[in-house]
Parts: sequence; C-alpha cells; structure tokens
Amino acid sequence: MFTLYYAPNTCALATLITFKDAGLQAGDDYALRRVDFKRLEQRSPEYLAVNPKGRVPALVTPRGILTETPAMLAFLAQSFPQAELAPLDDPFAFADLQAFNSFLCSSLHIAHAHRMRGHRWVDEANTAAIKAMQDKVPDSVGACYDLIEAGMLKGPWVMGEAYTIADPYLFTIAQWLEQDGVDPARIPRIVDHRARMAARANVMAALAEESA
Amino acid sequence: MFTLYYAPNTCALATLITFKDAGLQAGDDYALRRVDFKRLEQRSPEYLAVNPKGRVPALVTPRGILTETPAMLAFLAQSFPQAELAPLDDPFAFADLQAFNSFLCSSLHIAHAHRMRGHRWVDEANTAAIKAMQDKVPDSVGACYDLIEAGMLKGPWVMGEAYTIADPYLFTIAQWLEQDGVDPARIPRIVDHRARMAARANVMAALAEESA
Repeated sequence: MFTLYYAPNTCALATLITFKDAGLQAGDDYALRRVDFKRLEQRSPEYLAVNPKGRVPALVTPRGILTETPAMLAFLAQSFPQAELAPLDDPFAFADLQAFNSFLCSSLHIAHAHRMRGHRWVDEANTAAIKAMQDKVPDSVGACYDLIEAGMLKGPWVMGEAYTIADPYLFTIAQWLEQDGVDPARIPRIVDHRARMAARANVMAALAEESA
Repeated sequence: MFTLYYAPNTCALATLITFKDAGLQAGDDYALRRVDFKRLEQRSPEYLAVNPKGRVPALVTPRGILTETPAMLAFLAQSFPQAELAPLDDPFAFADLQAFNSFLCSSLHIAHAHRMRGHRWVDEANTAAIKAMQDKVPDSVGACYDLIEAGMLKGPWVMGEAYTIADPYLFTIAQWLEQDGVDPARIPRIVDHRARMAARANVMAALAEESA
C-alpha cells in the first residue's frame, strides 16, 4: 500500500497517473492524502515530519518515504516491470528517459515556478524582483518547450513508439503552459501530445481523483 | 569510448569522478573535451549540435548523447555494475538515491545558479533583480544544505555505509558553498564529507584532470 501526499494542479499528478498506468487500484493499492496549500499545510509540523522539504508530492511506501518526481516515477516503473513503463534492461535508453524527466524537473518546472514561487529565490518583500521573474516566465518556459518541441519529444510518445513515465510527467507540466504565457501555436507537437494524453482513460481518471 | 564535454568548476566533475570510480581509464575508456565558457563556446553551433541545451556536461556514448547529471551518473552505475556505485537491484534504495541526486540538481544547484546565472530567470538588463537574486543565495542555498545536513546525508557516505554516485555529486556542488555565502560551521557533517571525498585518490585525479 502506498500513500501519495498531493495537491491538485501540482506535479503530483504525474505519479497519480503512473499509479494507474502501473495497474494499481485506488483504495486497494494506494491512498491519496491531500495537502491543503490554502492553509499552508505543507509547512505544518505534521507534514514536515513526512517531507522535511515542505513540498508535494511525497510517496509513503512500506520501505520508507520517497520524494522528487523523477525518482518516484522510476521507482514505480522498476517496481511494476510488467507495466513496461521504462526500458529497464537498457541502461542507455533508461538514462535517455531519465534525462528527459530531469530536464522537466530542473529546467522546465523551475522556470515555471518563477511565476508563482519567486520568493524561493528573492526576498518576498522585493515586489519588483518578484515581478521581474514573472515577466521572464514566457521566455524561460518557452525556451524549454522549444527544446522539447524541436527533438526531445520523439513522437508519438516522448521517447518514441513506447509510452513511458516521461509521458504523464510532460502532460502534467504542460497543463500550465497557457498560464505561463506560452503560445500553444508555437509548440504543436507538444499540444498534440497533451491532447492524446488527455484522451487516455487513466489520465481522465487521475484528473477526476485529484479533484474529488 | 566515452567523450565528456565539460568545463572546470562545473557539475561535470561529478561524472569525471564517477568515470574513475567505475574503473574507466583516461585515453582508453574516455576522453575529455573542454568547452571554453570564456569564448561562449557552449553557445556555438558546433556545441549546440552536441547539446542543444548549450550547457555542460554532455556525455557522448556509442549509443548517443546523454545530458543531465543525475541521468548520466545512473547510466554509469548501471553500465558498470561491478563497481557497485548504486543499489541496482533494490528499486526503493535506488529511488532514494535518485531522490537525493534530483534534489541536488533541481533545488541546490538551481539555488546556487541564481548567483551567477540569474539572467536565466529575469531580463539580464534588470540589474536590480539580478542583484536581488544574488542577495538571496546564502539563504536559499543554505536552506538546501540544512536539509542535507539534518538527515538526507546519512553518513558516513550520503546513502549510508555504501559509497554511491550521490557522493561525487554532493562533493562537486559543495565546492561552491563558501562562494555561495554559506558558513561551513553551519553544516559540519557536509564539510566532513567533503574533506573525506577530497582525500580520495579518484577525486584528486579527477580534479587534476579537469584543470589540466
């Protein structure tokens, strides 16, 4: 049994979709535990005991607690190999997949975070600097999407013919691209990928569950 | 044969150390190719053909090119299992290791990057915002180190008794902590880890090679 600490409209969605892609059943195999950002629950002593970073997601497993989406997704792929969510027996192909997910985590998601979470990197009282960060987001996020559009997204799925854990992760972050000020017309292959993901039953179920 | 595109005093050092930890020999098993940041070679058409992201490191392998340090380190650990650089047969322990490296990449290294590379996230002409980012670095980098000091660094090595690919990666980034304005006295366990790493023959050889 896993417990996923999550909040709606965060990158926790990637793990929830991957639960379903791995064949796990809500209630039997995993439980969701919503963290209320409005009440700043992510900074509560109770939640900090789960994840000292004060962020979501966090994945409670029988062995201990995991954080960091790229690590959690690889964990699920390795723990449920029959679901074939990663090229587990090919170190190069696995690394290529991991490089994609690492880029989402450390470049694209970080660029995005400067729109809402600028206080991580400047004094929050410095409203001019906070705004300067927000103003740059369309460019910085857009540049990340340009790299994905130009070749990192191999098509039809991220890594090519095989659907992998990179697909729900890209889909999750691509939910935010319009709010980040990126013109969808600039990145048609990514928008097409997003539409095909949105049509998957597991994705629709995950979106419904996180909003419930 | 691998070729590592690198620059001195960057996170490429983690991969160079791991080459040596994996038993690879300079000249026979890998070659180094220095990218000249002073001449902005990382933005040259030749280098962008290697790595469209315009960053180091990039690892040329017989199968293709890999980027992103966490992915490259896991690739080396999986490709040279006899070196026992990661718990390859234990998905939870491997994910725990990967979560550490992901945190280094997407939180600690990113916080650090706001000191020298603030133009990624604000208009570079906005010198006030660039300075506001620099002013925050001791706090933001320090907060990442506090989490590592408080428990993520299990000791004696990052993941506990076994030396892994997390060790050269932490060592590499910890080279910069004084310049980032973090008081070493605040994080004695990390400073001790850094000293023990610096005494390893492979680390000394890697540092000499990248400076040669």
